[in-house]
Amino acid sequence: MSKVTFYGDSISGNCYKLKLAAAQLGIDYDWHEIDILAGESRTPEFLAMNPNGRVPLMALPDGRYLAESNAILSWLADGSPLAGRDRYGRANVLSWMCFEQYSHEPYIATARFIVRYLGNPEDRQRSLESKQKAGYKALDVMERHLSEHGFFANDAYSIADIALFAYTHVADEGGYDLAGYEEVNAWLERVRRTEGFVPMSDRH
Amino acid sequence: MSKVTFYGDSISGNCYKLKLAAAQLGIDYDWHEIDILAGESRTPEFLAMNPNGRVPLMALPDGRYLAESNAILSWLADGSPLAGRDRYGRANVLSWMCFEQYSHEPYIATARFIVRYLGNPEDRQRSLESKQKAGYKALDVMERHLSEHGFFANDAYSIADIALFAYTHVADEGGYDLAGYEEVNAWLERVRRTEGFVPMSDRH
Repeated sequence: MSKVTFYGDSISGNCYKLKLAAAQLGIDYDWHEIDILAGESRTPEFLAMNPNGRVPLMALPDGRYLAESNAILSWLADGSPLAGRDRYGRANVLSWMCFEQYSHEPYIATARFIVRYLGNPEDRQRSLESKQKAGYKALDVMERHLSEHGFFANDAYSIADIALFAYTHVADEGGYDLAGYEEVNAWLERVRRTEGFVPMSDRH
Repeated sequence: MSKVTFYGDSISGNCYKLKLAAAQLGIDYDWHEIDILAGESRTPEFLAMNPNGRVPLMALPDGRYLAESNAILSWLADGSPLAGRDRYGRANVLSWMCFEQYSHEPYIATARFIVRYLGNPEDRQRSLESKQKAGYKALDVMERHLSEHGFFANDAYSIADIALFAYTHVADEGGYDLAGYEEVNAWLERVRRTEGFVPMSDRH
């Protein structure tokens, strides 16, 4: 099979998920950089590929598209242990990816966007505070879970860890202080030591 | 296998998803009502089952739990055509379920909660307006997709349609006017005509 193409912005944790999973699954890809801040995910050309105007987006060699980072992760890992080993295992991996997209990313990723990419403007302070409050709640759920488990789903490294690692490891860029989160920090290190790990190119 | 148990609140579209999917897949279940407005999803007993404090939650006969409506949908439909028929099909179903949880539910469901269940209080008007703006964007994406497709993923009825039906069909309760959304309305009717369809018990 020829290569898939990822359309993504290197500053985005959602896009980094695909790079990390592809590296660990041995999947070759072409990377097409889409500059979100320059509006490149809202051009007519991009909207024709993904009407929701978001990155990442994957193109299959046959021209079909797939949107949503966690759906692309599932496609990449389909049939591998990283997607879970049985019916409950697969659903459990998905459960933590749903947690990431609903209870984590909208607060942890968005705070980082406000602070690092919008320059932390005065008129976003109230929004930032409310996001951080919800973000710490998500971190609390993670800390509690990790006090009893080495990884998120089924006690095994999976695409759920990849999904949650993407923005947790750069949470400080959104003003989060992870100093008190011992279990989360230990898990971040465990993820960094998994075979074939690649860092986020944007993380300096 | 003995029955699974759903913990859910009958006013919640996320919980209704499970009733609809179970009915269409012929899966028997026990229902355990959790009154969100009375704080029953935040009790120590409930948090011990789901530390994220959200419904729905499913308990397997062996005592394992599964959180997140769309992950439970995937468990229920695992191996059936409702989950997609091949690698791309499954990921495409998941993609639309991710769209639902990230770009649709936080606006369509939350507006309904503010209007119908919180009594549309004055101090939530700004929040409601901003949610409705984003909710109409999601409806626009749906309208555009449905102008070319009968259902959301792979041109076939799937758990992606169940996920999106749950709050779209009660969007009016959040102040949305669906009069201009011809394709969405036609799709709502198509879903209502699928075999084994059951209505949301809460919808009067």
